[in-house]
Amino acid sequence: MTKSDQLPTQVTHVELVIEARWVVPADANNTLHEFYSVVIDHQLIVDVLPTDQARIKYAATEVLIADEHVLIPGLINAHTHAAMTLMRGIADDQPLMVWLNAHIWPAERAIVNERYVEDASLLACAEMLSGGTTCFNDMYFYPQATAMAANKTGIRAHIGLTVLEFPTNYAVDADDYLQKGFEAHDSWRGNPLISSALAPHAPYTISNSTFEKVLTYADQLGLGIHTHLHETRDEISQSEATYGVRPIQRVAELGLLGPGFIAAHGVHLLPHEIDMLAEYGCHIAHCPASNLKLGSGIAPVHALLKNNVNVCIGTDGAASNNRLDMFSEMRLAALLCKGASEDATALPAYQALKMATINAAKAMGLDHKIGSIEIGKQADLVAVKLSDFAISPCYDPVSHLVYSCGREHVTHTWVAGELRYSHGTFANIEPLELKEIIQIWQPKLRQYKH
Amino acid sequence: MTKSDQLPTQVTHVELVIEARWVVPADANNTLHEFYSVVIDHQLIVDVLPTDQARIKYAATEVLIADEHVLIPGLINAHTHAAMTLMRGIADDQPLMVWLNAHIWPAERAIVNERYVEDASLLACAEMLSGGTTCFNDMYFYPQATAMAANKTGIRAHIGLTVLEFPTNYAVDADDYLQKGFEAHDSWRGNPLISSALAPHAPYTISNSTFEKVLTYADQLGLGIHTHLHETRDEISQSEATYGVRPIQRVAELGLLGPGFIAAHGVHLLPHEIDMLAEYGCHIAHCPASNLKLGSGIAPVHALLKNNVNVCIGTDGAASNNRLDMFSEMRLAALLCKGASEDATALPAYQALKMATINAAKAMGLDHKIGSIEIGKQADLVAVKLSDFAISPCYDPVSHLVYSCGREHVTHTWVAGELRYSHGTFANIEPLELKEIIQIWQPKLRQYKH
Repeated sequence: MTKSDQLPTQVTHVELVIEARWVVPADANNTLHEFYSVVIDHQLIVDVLPTDQARIKYAATEVLIADEHVLIPGLINAHTHAAMTLMRGIADDQPLMVWLNAHIWPAERAIVNERYVEDASLLACAEMLSGGTTCFNDMYFYPQATAMAANKTGIRAHIGLTVLEFPTNYAVDADDYLQKGFEAHDSWRGNPLISSALAPHAPYTISNSTFEKVLTYADQLGLGIHTHLHETRDEISQSEATYGVRPIQRVAELGLLGPGFIAAHGVHLLPHEIDMLAEYGCHIAHCPASNLKLGSGIAPVHALLKNNVNVCIGTDGAASNNRLDMFSEMRLAALLCKGASEDATALPAYQALKMATINAAKAMGLDHKIGSIEIGKQADLVAVKLSDFAISPCYDPVSHLVYSCGREHVTHTWVAGELRYSHGTFANIEPLELKEIIQIWQPKLRQYKH
Repeated sequence: MTKSDQLPTQVTHVELVIEARWVVPADANNTLHEFYSVVIDHQLIVDVLPTDQARIKYAATEVLIADEHVLIPGLINAHTHAAMTLMRGIADDQPLMVWLNAHIWPAERAIVNERYVEDASLLACAEMLSGGTTCFNDMYFYPQATAMAANKTGIRAHIGLTVLEFPTNYAVDADDYLQKGFEAHDSWRGNPLISSALAPHAPYTISNSTFEKVLTYADQLGLGIHTHLHETRDEISQSEATYGVRPIQRVAELGLLGPGFIAAHGVHLLPHEIDMLAEYGCHIAHCPASNLKLGSGIAPVHALLKNNVNVCIGTDGAASNNRLDMFSEMRLAALLCKGASEDATALPAYQALKMATINAAKAMGLDHKIGSIEIGKQADLVAVKLSDFAISPCYDPVSHLVYSCGREHVTHTWVAGELRYSHGTFANIEPLELKEIIQIWQPKLRQYKH
């Protein structure tokens, strides 16, 4: 024995140690740790080490034994309209334009106000936290109300300052949307859990001059841009008819493409457009369930990945999914990529997990803070129990997370080191409150049902 | 008031009345009942009527109030290899031939015996019952062992008398497989929950002379035929090289096609082949997750449905899915059909539910007994709770079943009027037993892991 082996180890006091059977950090090396501990103090991950070493090195106020669990970074939903939760399943199996014109838009015109958005977003935050999602990239009216709901539940949110041209209850024109967006942005300044992006809705709803303003503000404020892009064939042919070019070419010419640009959907992309996305360092928020359900098509994820485009995963809103469930979305993304490319090795499980975590953090410019289990990052963590008989046996916890598990196997969700959800119970949400929200709004919305 | 209104109503004594918020019978008219009761006596559905009428007309030994639930016919998994449950996730993200040659087949050669099949099938039956599946159409070695497991758990099973040419622990050649199959068939004769099909594995593993024998026996015994067909492009090109025709043409020429013929997969089908399936009244067991996961492709379900081919839904084995979960399979079938056809109205929710119930019953020739909630049929029923906040609100219980629910929302599963699963507990399976099965077999199988 060397002398150092005999020295008494210095014990560090920390708030929380999670002793996990497995830890999947979603790091650059696709690491899988077994019998590992994650050490948390003052919101941060301060160590990741074998449990036997953690027991010597740390004394924790709380030790959580997760001996049948895999610990993963909190899932990040890269494209949401959280406040559409109350419209879940209101008009299924409808063609897109009927869905929008006859159901969703009339309902939004008549019903949506600040109170609605806060209530519906609260339900969304509850659904997301209980399913292991710790952060979402949102776009909707009344972003301040979404932030209120997020704050209440303790989830992290990257909230779009939504811009449209047409008048709604929320704003009268593009300048008004921008103005209201900046007021919202100012209101959550300094809040460690809320960040902003500029969210011009889509090329088919935004004029060139508004895109130019958005770009100017994005540069001035150092914010990213989140928009819908190439979701449907109609969108593309409309753009060709109106502007003479496909939407991506138009936004490229306007100067919007860059490493702060998140394109939701990207279903219909030509090879040179995929190259363009790669060259500019843009991000695709892939929404496979929504793209299938609305009949939009199947995004060329295999080609995007081959060309090193950063692809993350989103659920879209609950009106077109109808779950805000990153487990089913990861699974679908992996399966669909394999099936569409006829290559079983395409989009393996670890890559799917990274698309649902670190890739989304990169897209939002938050990868220095979240997206992986690494020392110095925020402790946004999820424990998933892998011992349920219906998902047994488990040979590989990473493949299990993607192909076998459901969100129902999530047992604990932490955001910034705080336990926000565990075994059916929320830290800050009363079940009765969610019931009341549904009782208030469902009768109002029912008339817009298919 | 007429005289008859004043007569005292005659009360009928029955075993069970389920008072449901909604009943979705999966009948020819796509009915949806609200505040309805299903009345069960001696294994059968004896009435389906409004709950206020049921309370007058029936006195039941047991009344189950399912006031937040939708009651549906038990789901039928149209293509399984139940005993592969213990190989769940053993070799994911591998090309099909590597998956088979380096992992699945070596594991099967070394491990599979009668005890293995009974144990692994028991785990499969538990998983299926807890997820609302009441019947499965199986194909594997040692069918008698699968029947033993099914009997033990009380699930219904349509079990393939599996035929291959090559020797295994189970049988030495095609005649031996057939002989062992008939012994199994004889062993469960008279068992009301077990029925048989002839299950020649696939055109690429079965010779013409064996197919001819299978056909002769099928005719003599009045049994259907269940085989893999057109699962991969390789299978088709191999057939073209060996036989000069595509597999479906070959089995057609051998006389196998007909209303007793279930083709699992049917991923790659030309228009005239779809016509052929329709003309012969064949059935497709569509396995969307497995087809995607193994990179086989996307079946032309939209075209099959348009041409009135009877399509049902299967999970395939847990080694290529990795769930025996008819909820996620229904959802995937509906989403994939819409996305691949770029038509949001394709495969609406009620049709997806019928593919997972009555269509499968038709394929197995059991639609006189099971597959829908209709008077005179076996009481194979599932209650699904729709009030969980994560799937709220609910505007349409049918669309909710397919797009929002997961198998975790199943609260009760009955087979032939007997409650086999409820709220995490089985009538005939001890949780410890499942744990022991996993502890026995997982260490043996682990060496075949990817």
